[in-house]
Amino acid sequence: MSFKNVIVAQSGGPTAVINSSLLGVYEQAKKLGACKVYGARYGICGVFDGKFIDLDNVLHSLDNELLAMQTPASLLGSCRRRLPAVFFYEARSKADNFVKGSDYEKIASIFKQFDVSAFFYIGGNDSMETVWKLASVFKGTELNSVRFIGVPKTIDNDLEGTDHCPGFGSAAKFVATSFLELDRDLSVYDKPSVTIIEVMGRDAGWLTAASALARLNGAKGPDLIYCCENDFNLDLFLADVERGLSQNKNGRVLIAVSEGLDLKNQCEKFSGEGCDDFGHVQNAGVAKALELVVAKQLGCKVRSFELSLLQRASAHIASKTDVLEARAVGRHAVDLAFSGKTGVMATIQRNSNNPYSVEFSSVDVANVAGRVKKMPANFIAGNFDVSKEAVDWLTPLIQGQISIKFKNGLPAHLILAD
Amino acid sequence: MSFKNVIVAQSGGPTAVINSSLLGVYEQAKKLGACKVYGARYGICGVFDGKFIDLDNVLHSLDNELLAMQTPASLLGSCRRRLPAVFFYEARSKADNFVKGSDYEKIASIFKQFDVSAFFYIGGNDSMETVWKLASVFKGTELNSVRFIGVPKTIDNDLEGTDHCPGFGSAAKFVATSFLELDRDLSVYDKPSVTIIEVMGRDAGWLTAASALARLNGAKGPDLIYCCENDFNLDLFLADVERGLSQNKNGRVLIAVSEGLDLKNQCEKFSGEGCDDFGHVQNAGVAKALELVVAKQLGCKVRSFELSLLQRASAHIASKTDVLEARAVGRHAVDLAFSGKTGVMATIQRNSNNPYSVEFSSVDVANVAGRVKKMPANFIAGNFDVSKEAVDWLTPLIQGQISIKFKNGLPAHLILAD
Repeated sequence: MSFKNVIVAQSGGPTAVINSSLLGVYEQAKKLGACKVYGARYGICGVFDGKFIDLDNVLHSLDNELLAMQTPASLLGSCRRRLPAVFFYEARSKADNFVKGSDYEKIASIFKQFDVSAFFYIGGNDSMETVWKLASVFKGTELNSVRFIGVPKTIDNDLEGTDHCPGFGSAAKFVATSFLELDRDLSVYDKPSVTIIEVMGRDAGWLTAASALARLNGAKGPDLIYCCENDFNLDLFLADVERGLSQNKNGRVLIAVSEGLDLKNQCEKFSGEGCDDFGHVQNAGVAKALELVVAKQLGCKVRSFELSLLQRASAHIASKTDVLEARAVGRHAVDLAFSGKTGVMATIQRNSNNPYSVEFSSVDVANVAGRVKKMPANFIAGNFDVSKEAVDWLTPLIQGQISIKFKNGLPAHLILAD
Repeated sequence: MSFKNVIVAQSGGPTAVINSSLLGVYEQAKKLGACKVYGARYGICGVFDGKFIDLDNVLHSLDNELLAMQTPASLLGSCRRRLPAVFFYEARSKADNFVKGSDYEKIASIFKQFDVSAFFYIGGNDSMETVWKLASVFKGTELNSVRFIGVPKTIDNDLEGTDHCPGFGSAAKFVATSFLELDRDLSVYDKPSVTIIEVMGRDAGWLTAASALARLNGAKGPDLIYCCENDFNLDLFLADVERGLSQNKNGRVLIAVSEGLDLKNQCEKFSGEGCDDFGHVQNAGVAKALELVVAKQLGCKVRSFELSLLQRASAHIASKTDVLEARAVGRHAVDLAFSGKTGVMATIQRNSNNPYSVEFSSVDVANVAGRVKKMPANFIAGNFDVSKEAVDWLTPLIQGQISIKFKNGLPAHLILAD
């Protein structure tokens, strides 16, 4: 196929390298002959509103390319909008061409207006659901030739069908660096203390596991790592902490916990309340809830905090491997569309850990949408650690640094005018 | 005077550049003829125990010098031990030479045993109290010639007598970078939200003020900055937040709060309990307490977190200005001792902001010990911001980056064997 105009959008939680994927889509679409590459503002919402930016005006210069690669969070903005369920629209008469007044009709109308050949959605498993819905509904209509391609993105690394997700390596590098620096910080006192750090990951412990990488550079900790792949048992946890207090050097215990640990019915102070716009439960306060229990039960010095938003925004210490892969995955997504594919997500397939080597492929988005990939069993070691296999698998993903351009003593960012 | 052996120790909370000061003391002492430069483990505690390291074995090579400059937290360890009050020991009969069995006698005995000419203590205002006590008690004794010199260090920047403190610039750079990246992260959604970030600073708002530097590189926020130099008023705060929700782009409100804000009698959930070993109250939970109030009163999406220990350990994004000044202050401390001074702290005096220029001097530790320097009134702008004067003063301190050596994808650190 050939390209007329294409649209690219970003969705879900930001990452440090999501703009590198945007750059990859842009440059490859231009290379393959796209006339206009439109960036939709605020994800699929921008498509409804026809809120587009001609990316020639943003990413055309080498300076801006480099800035995009070091700017965290979605340059185009994001959203968490869910499209209506497909079954009704798929089953409609194809003669009717999109049910009148439906979201799909609005999108189709915009696509016709802007003469769109392909739509690229950079996001996580909810975004892949959107890609799947669009590809399903557009099939067999007058817009049958429009290609819908997913570009994977999530610091949680929990997308099915790809070895790992762009965004994860940089978040992992920040987490590991933070634990390395915390290990130094906590080593200075020779008194018992417990420090509990909460790492993002609602459903899978990939990012929490990355805390173990701090040990590669001489850190003693984290001493205990609790991923949500294991059932959490409060009594075992307290026993683990107590053992650390009595056996570790200086009685220091540094603990990594997944945000997604299920403490319900175990910690009275735990409140896993609140839902995001997709109905996912937002567990909050795992570390704080455990801090309160440790303080009460063991009576030692204890503190907790969350790495929180920093871990998905820390472009200043991005992994070069991640940045380059994010860009390459964006380019590959365009190749997929060009070769006639639709309803697929670009993927990374790993050939080997050492030497690290990958190639790019694709997977049917139906196999990604709404699903969660947990760590394999052999990545977990006992109740409170990860295995050598996990460390060997994680290590290549945090390698390399990009040369950051600074301004006023701070990283320079590319920021769109309002 | 000439040097035989000298002792250097580190105390109080770690910083990203405290080892650069250690390096400065070491290299200048060697240059001026010191035979041995001993590093005491765990601050003054290591002196009691005679736990010393010959720093020739640690800092002798260029490789290790460079590693020391990028390793956060006290290489030698730290402590929070307070020496006994001076009045009794000062008033003792000088013929008696240190009261038998006292802490001071133990220290004097170690100093005699190791033939010590000078003692350098890298620390904050509590450490300067220790320097003052030692200088006072040793005066007029047989160890009258031993020099006691303070080397300033604190991310809080609240030491009297010096324009600013080594460690502050790097913490400020991390805080500003974090707010810059958070500003990008929070800009991606077009829905109202409140994000409250707690910055270290028990008694002064210097570090919280540094959040404003994010605006130098295009950040819209922080929208509201509350330093502990202002009295905090909950009703005004809620009105400020409400105005931000209705007036800001996307209704986004990013807030920086000092850990030391006094919320007592204003927030029921606020618990300013707990004391460190010097009796300082450890305020905890300012951001969390405010989050709960905002959620209850304004009913909007709100989250909070603390930058916590990361801000004092983030050597991977240290300010080059800070690193070099920390080293130079260490060297200057040795010069002070060599010129016969005792009971003083090395200081930085600023000649101008632009072009930035400083020189090194000294101040009587009695004017530093136990005192706190708050921000001057002209650095505060209204209830919730800092002034242009503050920004102009802060900006030079975060300039420049050191070229970090990485290993395994993570910053390489210098770590002492146990």
